Amino acid sequence: MNLRTRNRPTTHLLALVGAVVTLLMSGAVADDTKRYEATFTADGELIRPSGWREWVFVGSPLTPNSLNGGEAPFPEFHSVYIDPESWAHWKETGKFREGTMLAKELTLVGATAATSGIGFFNGDLQGFEIAHKDSSRYSKDTGGWAYYSFGHKPEPYADTTAAQPIAACAACHTAAAADDMVFTQYYPILKTAKDAGDDGAGVGGEQ
Amino acid sequence: MNLRTRNRPTTHLLALVGAVVTLLMSGAVADDTKRYEATFTADGELIRPSGWREWVFVGSPLTPNSLNGGEAPFPEFHSVYIDPESWAHWKETGKFREGTMLAKELTLVGATAATSGIGFFNGDLQGFEIAHKDSSRYSKDTGGWAYYSFGHKPEPYADTTAAQPIAACAACHTAAAADDMVFTQYYPILKTAKDAGDDGAGVGGEQ
Repeated sequence: MNLRTRNRPTTHLLALVGAVVTLLMSGAVADDTKRYEATFTADGELIRPSGWREWVFVGSPLTPNSLNGGEAPFPEFHSVYIDPESWAHWKETGKFREGTMLAKELTLVGATAATSGIGFFNGDLQGFEIAHKDSSRYSKDTGGWAYYSFGHKPEPYADTTAAQPIAACAACHTAAAADDMVFTQYYPILKTAKDAGDDGAGVGGEQ
Repeated sequence: MNLRTRNRPTTHLLALVGAVVTLLMSGAVADDTKRYEATFTADGELIRPSGWREWVFVGSPLTPNSLNGGEAPFPEFHSVYIDPESWAHWKETGKFREGTMLAKELTLVGATAATSGIGFFNGDLQGFEIAHKDSSRYSKDTGGWAYYSFGHKPEPYADTTAAQPIAACAACHTAAAADDMVFTQYYPILKTAKDAGDDGAGVGGEQ
């Protein structure tokens, strides 16, 4: 058996490895689209991420005009999400990783009565905001977070936006948020999932 | 070179292949858990799916006791999700595919005041329900849907449960739901995403 012949099985095996790895990596690449690392314009504005409605929902606080003298500071439904990678990190560690993005999409209060009773039902989309944690980019005064508004209006939202002044957002988060500038006290899903691993995503029944 | 020596590189390579395939398949297997086809016990009870908090959120109707004489039929926040495969189908076709599952996790009304104003904030988890579409399994009288409650209480929820009687759920859906037994009129995300393709998940800004 000469060297060339001897190596042939190895060569074939390498080709097989290549094919298998390519096949499996194509899935892995698809997975990568679920990674939402913040990107910025040359002048430091945050670029609106894509696909946030497929992030992980954490809660829906509501302070409607009808309960705040017609002038609520935040009259819309807040639909709050965390990006998938940071959700995975939260489940494992109970911490908001550097790079965490929480998205808040607003919807108007639509219907206030239905067959299910008197209350509040999501109306039209009305704005989009991001909280982003990056201790190397933002001040210690805000715990390493910054807050961005892409518009308080229907779509299309702004493509890019500068961070809000501290008084506009960070001040209240500093004063009242329970865990690392996030109002986890109002997000039972985050409380349940903290350090819980995959069980935090909802445990299936037994067959 | 004896046979044993000659095979050693191949053996090592096979071990490497095994390790790589195992590593990559762990990701692939994780992906497969994103498909949530309903499964049933031998006597036809639906088995509670796993990981619904990572499904796609569609809306959060609320009809609190405080606005319904203290006796609201549905006093909790309803956090409503659609399973990922059915969401993808909805984005592409605007239809609820056979097999669609909508999950509804309940949370008590927790705080009713915060620095953001008077209102309603998610409290503790308080129940879990599923709407499932399968025209081959369920009656035309319910449009091919059935409704399941895994408990109106904190976790742990029931592992399996039988379909609810028509009067308990389907009757109201038949009477008032806008689109194929689903209250899409209260789910702006479903309305926005219908036939919209990936744009329905939220469009990113331009660089």
